[in-house]
Amino acid sequence: MGDRLVEFQEEVRAFAEVRDWQRFHTPKNLAMALAGEVGELLAEFQWLTPEESGRVMGDPDAGGRVAAEIGDVVVYLVRLADVLGVDLVDVARAKLADSAKRYPVGWQPASIRGEVV
Amino acid sequence: MGDRLVEFQEEVRAFAEVRDWQRFHTPKNLAMALAGEVGELLAEFQWLTPEESGRVMGDPDAGGRVAAEIGDVVVYLVRLADVLGVDLVDVARAKLADSAKRYPVGWQPASIRGEVV
Amino acid sequence: MGDRLVEFQEEVRAFAEVRDWQRFHTPKNLAMALAGEVGELLAEFQWLTPEESGRVMGDPDAGGRVAAEIGDVVVYLVRLADVLGVDLVDVARAKLADSAKRYPVGWQPASIRGEVV
Amino acid sequence: MGDRLVEFQEEVRAFAEVRDWQRFHTPKNLAMALAGEVGELLAEFQWLTPEESGRVMGDPDAGGRVAAEIGDVVVYLVRLADVLGVDLVDVARAKLADSAKRYPVGWQPASIRGEVV
Repeated sequence: MGDRLVEFQEEVRAFAEVRDWQRFHTPKNLAMALAGEVGELLAEFQWLTPEESGRVMGDPDAGGRVAAEIGDVVVYLVRLADVLGVDLVDVARAKLADSAKRYPVGWQPASIRGEVV
Repeated sequence: MGDRLVEFQEEVRAFAEVRDWQRFHTPKNLAMALAGEVGELLAEFQWLTPEESGRVMGDPDAGGRVAAEIGDVVVYLVRLADVLGVDLVDVARAKLADSAKRYPVGWQPASIRGEVV
Repeated sequence: MGDRLVEFQEEVRAFAEVRDWQRFHTPKNLAMALAGEVGELLAEFQWLTPEESGRVMGDPDAGGRVAAEIGDVVVYLVRLADVLGVDLVDVARAKLADSAKRYPVGWQPASIRGEVV
Repeated sequence: MGDRLVEFQEEVRAFAEVRDWQRFHTPKNLAMALAGEVGELLAEFQWLTPEESGRVMGDPDAGGRVAAEIGDVVVYLVRLADVLGVDLVDVARAKLADSAKRYPVGWQPASIRGEVV
């Protein structure tokens, strides 16, 4: 209640069930679908400089495509989590806590920079 | 408030800022990091049959690895959304609404099955 | 001479140079483009059963799409190797030799099956 | 004869057959394995600037890892092509020919740059 992600997860589940698509939604297939959508998201950034990528949402066309691709990624990620019985925020928080230990504040190796997890 | 995903997004932002990692967190780089983590998630499923993939969370080792990889995916996805100023649930809901129009209940082509978006 | 892959690599290089696209073809960008194309290839298989995937080339439409996506993957992989100065067969042969040591004939763990590298 | 890629393809096939791994090597599974390895390749480049990525082979550690990841990608790509009965150079050459038509020399749109296919 108040958790928009859980509410949305239920919407995606209902969407799949009313179409009888559960049989296609194995974790294996959903992981592939997720990866396919992430590939489309990558394609939006592949020829941009880092600086251009930082301004992408200011371009109506490219920004709209990026938002749409991220939307696709979220739909499959939420569906995968639902099928697996995984809470997305819980598993992410656990990994962020791990990273906080592995990369204490002040640590800055030359070869791994910007790692969040 | 009450939105766990937004709360978590703020935690990830603080994690990055206190380490001064914003300079690495361009949308381009974060999209790559997201894709790299999705690749690790795929690897957990690649040799499993569809049926085995459906039972993966019942195996403590494999299930733990899957949860951890999903956690990594969420961390980078949340960070990417934050940097872009995109609301993950909003963009996903927009795509699900599109799909509901494109794939009305009852529609079932042979060649595209299980598409959510 | 007689090496079709090297000949093709030279064709891709000429294609890029005559269009003055070298400036876009950093290893980072080409790795992203490769990943984007692999994502499209995945999408061809995501809803297929393992058995259906084994018959995909017998379907003119799906088979043609799969061949085209693999073609895209090869183009970017060849271009990436060219820019990096890596010989694709040499690096692959080195990894296969590693795998032959790691997975001696007869070895068959329950949890890792079908690994080539 | 003289075609190193075809010779290597036969080596990978023998590697899989002597281990009786054909049953794991469906096109669906091999496409996932390929994508997983491409994800690892991406990870090598994700925090590098475009310029740093251009110098990666000059760093013994990072360069070695990049070569190894590309090797993994080639192994699975070659195995996938073998299982599908696709000639990698033929399908790539067909796509390059398409691209030559779509992107005539001199054409330079603002929004798509560096596309090879």
